[in-house]
Amino acid sequence: MTSKFTIGLDYGTNSVRAIVARCADGAELGSCVVPYPSGEEGVILDPHNDLVARQHPADYEFGLKKAVAGALREAKESDSGFSANAVIGLGVDTTGSSPIPVDKNNRPLAHHAPFQRDPAAQCWLWKDHTSHAEAAHITALAREHRPQYVAKCGNTYSSEWFWSKIWHCLRTAPSVFRVAHSWVELCDWVPSILAGVTDPAAIRRGVCAAGHKALYSDEWGGLPDKAFLSLLDPALAELRDRLYEKAYDASTVAGYLCAEWAAALGLPKGIPIAIGEMDVHYGAIGSGIAEGTLVKVIGTSTCDCAVLSLDKDVADIPGICGIVPGAILPGFYGIEAGQSAVGDIFKWWVEGVCGGSGELHGKLTEEAQKLRPGQSGLLALDWNNGNRTILVDQRLTGLILGQTLQTTRAEIYRSLIEATAFGARAILERIEAYGVPVKRIVCAGGIAEKNPMLMQIYADITGREMRIARSGQACALGAAIAASVVAGKEAGGHADFPSAQRAMTGLKEVAYTPQSGARAAYDQLYALYRQLHDAFGGVAQPDLGGLMKSLLRIKEKARQAPRA
Amino acid sequence: MTSKFTIGLDYGTNSVRAIVARCADGAELGSCVVPYPSGEEGVILDPHNDLVARQHPADYEFGLKKAVAGALREAKESDSGFSANAVIGLGVDTTGSSPIPVDKNNRPLAHHAPFQRDPAAQCWLWKDHTSHAEAAHITALAREHRPQYVAKCGNTYSSEWFWSKIWHCLRTAPSVFRVAHSWVELCDWVPSILAGVTDPAAIRRGVCAAGHKALYSDEWGGLPDKAFLSLLDPALAELRDRLYEKAYDASTVAGYLCAEWAAALGLPKGIPIAIGEMDVHYGAIGSGIAEGTLVKVIGTSTCDCAVLSLDKDVADIPGICGIVPGAILPGFYGIEAGQSAVGDIFKWWVEGVCGGSGELHGKLTEEAQKLRPGQSGLLALDWNNGNRTILVDQRLTGLILGQTLQTTRAEIYRSLIEATAFGARAILERIEAYGVPVKRIVCAGGIAEKNPMLMQIYADITGREMRIARSGQACALGAAIAASVVAGKEAGGHADFPSAQRAMTGLKEVAYTPQSGARAAYDQLYALYRQLHDAFGGVAQPDLGGLMKSLLRIKEKARQAPRA
Repeated sequence: MTSKFTIGLDYGTNSVRAIVARCADGAELGSCVVPYPSGEEGVILDPHNDLVARQHPADYEFGLKKAVAGALREAKESDSGFSANAVIGLGVDTTGSSPIPVDKNNRPLAHHAPFQRDPAAQCWLWKDHTSHAEAAHITALAREHRPQYVAKCGNTYSSEWFWSKIWHCLRTAPSVFRVAHSWVELCDWVPSILAGVTDPAAIRRGVCAAGHKALYSDEWGGLPDKAFLSLLDPALAELRDRLYEKAYDASTVAGYLCAEWAAALGLPKGIPIAIGEMDVHYGAIGSGIAEGTLVKVIGTSTCDCAVLSLDKDVADIPGICGIVPGAILPGFYGIEAGQSAVGDIFKWWVEGVCGGSGELHGKLTEEAQKLRPGQSGLLALDWNNGNRTILVDQRLTGLILGQTLQTTRAEIYRSLIEATAFGARAILERIEAYGVPVKRIVCAGGIAEKNPMLMQIYADITGREMRIARSGQACALGAAIAASVVAGKEAGGHADFPSAQRAMTGLKEVAYTPQSGARAAYDQLYALYRQLHDAFGGVAQPDLGGLMKSLLRIKEKARQAPRA
Repeated sequence: MTSKFTIGLDYGTNSVRAIVARCADGAELGSCVVPYPSGEEGVILDPHNDLVARQHPADYEFGLKKAVAGALREAKESDSGFSANAVIGLGVDTTGSSPIPVDKNNRPLAHHAPFQRDPAAQCWLWKDHTSHAEAAHITALAREHRPQYVAKCGNTYSSEWFWSKIWHCLRTAPSVFRVAHSWVELCDWVPSILAGVTDPAAIRRGVCAAGHKALYSDEWGGLPDKAFLSLLDPALAELRDRLYEKAYDASTVAGYLCAEWAAALGLPKGIPIAIGEMDVHYGAIGSGIAEGTLVKVIGTSTCDCAVLSLDKDVADIPGICGIVPGAILPGFYGIEAGQSAVGDIFKWWVEGVCGGSGELHGKLTEEAQKLRPGQSGLLALDWNNGNRTILVDQRLTGLILGQTLQTTRAEIYRSLIEATAFGARAILERIEAYGVPVKRIVCAGGIAEKNPMLMQIYADITGREMRIARSGQACALGAAIAASVVAGKEAGGHADFPSAQRAMTGLKEVAYTPQSGARAAYDQLYALYRQLHDAFGGVAQPDLGGLMKSLLRIKEKARQAPRA
C-alpha cells in the first residue's frame, strides 16, 4: 500500500504553519510558515490602549493558501513518493479564545466594507485584554448564580475568553454587535470554511474551545442558560440562539473539504476535516500526551496540558483554567493551565527594553549561562501579561527586585527566565496537589527546542526531568494526527488516538535532568518567589521585611561556592 | 585694594576639581577637573564582590597638582587681573567617610611597595559597603551599651562609616591594620599634607567627619571611649590613642601651606588652609545654607543638609544620618540626610543596562518628558545602593514593579527618577515632622543643574518650589568660602560665614514650581511607594494585594486625562 498523508494547519499568534505528515510514522515531509500580513507581526494593536490585540480574518485565508501550497511543494520535492492525491485528511488548530463576529453566511464582518478597519469587527485575539471589567462581572455573577459554571476554571472567568470579549463588544461597539449574526472561534471557523459551511448554525464546534472558553458543558445542556446570560445583558441571551447547542470532541469530523477549497489548495475534494482544537491541545496530542504525562507548550506564552480518564474523579482545582471532558483527547478530561507570557517576556526585555535583536538573545544567553543559581541576587515575577494560573488575574503586572548598581542586563534576562520557571513550578505543584499525576514532563514549542539553558533552569527549579517532543511542530502534528484518526484506518490513517500517537509521535534524545547543586538555591528562591506571588496576588500578607536580605545571603553563598 | 582670591578643592567620587574664587563676589575665575587615573573611573572595584569601592591615595596628590595648575591657568587667562600672589587661602572638601590607613609619618600605607596594590591599604571610599556585618555589630553594641552614641544618627551605625571600615580591615586584612599607625579621613588628610604635617597626631581633624562618621562628640569627650571600643576589639581601643582627642569646626585653620606644596602649586607659602569638611557640607555652605533652608546636593548620590541654631532644642530624628554641632556651619547643628544612589541609578539604567552613553540619557529624557505622572504604570524603589535615610540599611536593593509587555526603557528611566523623588519626599517629611523648619529648598550638583525634567518631577512630588544654587561648583565654592573666612577680613577675605555667604553665593533665576495637575497622581503614587518602602524596609506589613491594580487605575486615568 502506498503511504498516506494528512495536513496539519497551526494558526499561531504571528503566522500560520502547514505541515504534510506521513500517517505511518509522523514524518513531516513538507512544512511552510506564512506570516500574517496585517498589523504588527500580524497583530492589530492600539497605540493608546495596551490591552488591544486583534487580527484581520482575511489574513487567515491568505495564509491558508500560501502555507498549504508551500508545504505541498516541499513534500513533493522531498523525493519520498508524495503526491497530493495521497492526502486523506486535514486538521486545524488555532489560538484561542479568538472569536470572530460573522454574518448569516458565515463571512467575517471584517470582509464587509464598512467594517473592514473596525477593530471590533476583527478576530479578537486570545491575548486581547480589553474585557477585564466584563470578565470580573461574569466571575461575580457566576459565583453568585451559577457557581458550577466557574468551578472547573478556577472560580474565575478570564478577560481572554469568549463571553468577556463578546460582551465588551456589545458594550463598546454596539453597532458591530448588532450586525454580527453569530460569533465563531477561530479554531471552528477555519474548518467550517474549508468544509464550505455558509450557515453559522451548521458549523460543528469543538468542545475544546467551547468547554474551556465559553462555559459550555453537557452537564448543564451546553452554553450558559439564557436566564444567566440575561443577567449579563439580554442581548447575549438572544445571541445564544444563534450560537450552538452541541460541541464535539476530536473524534468527530467537522466536515469534508469543499470543491472550492479543494481546487484552491490542490487537494482531493471530500477528504475529512477534523474538529478544530486550540493549538496547545493538538500540541499536547502531537507531543504524546497520555494520563501521567504533563505537556508544556512553551512559546510566547506557555500552556500546560494534562489528561485524566473520564472514569476517574477529578476535583475542582482552584486557579486552573479549565477541566473539560473531551477537550484534548476523546475519552479523557482535558486539564489546562498556563502562563500568560513566557517568550513574550524575554522578547520584551531583549528587544523592547534593551533594544536588541535575535543576536542579543544569543549574547545574553551566553552570559546568563555563566551565572550560578542565586548569583544575581535578583528575583522577578512573570506577570508582565497578567497571571493566568493560579491567580487567574490579568491585571497583575511584572516585578523585578534585588537590583544593585552592578546588575547587568544578562542577570535580569536570567531572572526573567527563572521567574517563568517558578511560575511553572507553582502550576505543577497545584495540579499534583489536587490529584492529577505527573510522571513525565514533555515540552514542545520554539523555546523548549531552542533554549537549552532555559530547559535546564526549568529542570533545576521544578526538580523534574524535562524531555522534548520529537516534532518541532507538535501543534500542527497533533492536528495532522486528528486528521489521520477522522480519516480512519481503512483510508490509511489510524483507528484511534492512542495508535495514531504511537505511530506518529516521539521524544528527542536530549533529557534535562535536575542538578542537585542548583536545587538548594532554587528551593530557597522559590520560597521567596511564593512570598511575592502571594503578597502581590492578594492571597496572603507575608512579612517581606527580610526578603531583600535573604536574596543577598543566597547571592553571597552562590558567589562563594566552588564552580561546578 | 586689589581683588583677593581663595582656592576651593573638591574631591569627588571620580575626579577632583579646583576652583579659583574671588572673595568679593564669589566669581569663579578658573576651574579644572582631573579624573583619578586608577581603577574604573577612579574607583578600585572587585569583580567578585560588588561591595568593594576603594581609591588609590596617589591619585589625590596627582589630581591636586594638575587641578590647581589648571584652575590657576584659567584664572590667569580670564583677563581680570588675577595673580597667584593674590590667593589668600585654600579650602578642601572630599567624599566621606573615606578613611585612609597611614604610617607614623602620615604617609598612606599604599605608598609603600608591599601595600601598593593591597585593596585594604587604599582609601576606603564612602560607598564601600564591605563592612555591613561590622556596622550591624556596632549598632547592636551601641544600642545596648552606649545608646547616646547612635541616638543622633538614627540609632543605626552605617557600613559606610569610619569604625565599620577600620574594624572590617582589622578582621579581614589584619596585616594592614597592624602596620597602620593611624587612620585619617580624606577630608582631613588633604589639608594635612598641604600643611606639611608629618605626624598623624598633629593633624587637625574636622568635626564634620568626626561627628557624622566616627561617633565623635564633645559631650562624651571625643571619640568612643576605650571600654566601648574594646567591646568591638581591644585593638581598636589601642588605635584610639593614635587617632585624635579633639575635632574642630570650619572656623578653624587646619594649617598653613608648607613650602614644598607652595612650590609645587605655585601659591604663596604660609597661606591658611581651612579645616576639611565633607563635600556636601561645604556644598551646603556654597549653596547658601541657613536656618530654614534645606540644601540638596544631587549627584551620583544625594545629600540633604539643614542647620539649626545651637541654642534651639533638637530632637533625635529616627533614621537621620547625623545631627552634629558645628558640622556644617559654626554655631549651628548640622543635620545630614541622604540617598545612597541617585545619579548612579540613572547611570546604571542607561549605561549599565541599556548599554547607552550620554546621548541615550538625552534621548530617554526626551521620551520620558512626554509621559504624564502615573502614565507608565510603574513604581520603583530607589535602593540600588541601599537606603541611607530613613531606613539606614545598606542591604536593601532595588525594585521595579508594574511592567507590562509594552513597558519602554524611557518609562523605566522616568520611574527611577520618580523613585528618587519619592525618597527625597520621605526625607523631607521626616525632618519636618521632627521640628526642623524647611522654608526654602536650594539644590546643587550636576543633576540639579542639567536635568530640568528631574527638577520639575522633584517639585511635583514634594510639592515644594525647587531653586538651584548659582554656582555650578557649590562644594568647591563652599571650600573657597571657608578659606576666605580663615584668611579673615584683614587679608581681603571675610569676617565670618554669613558675610562670606552673602558676598559669594546666590541662586540661579530658574524656579521649579509644583504643578497642581501632577500633584494628585503623585500623591497617590507616593502612598503606594510608602507601602513598598515600609514592607520591604521591614517597618510595616501592609496589604499589597491591590497595589498593582491601583497602579493600573492611576495609569488609565493618566492616559485619559486631557493633555495639559
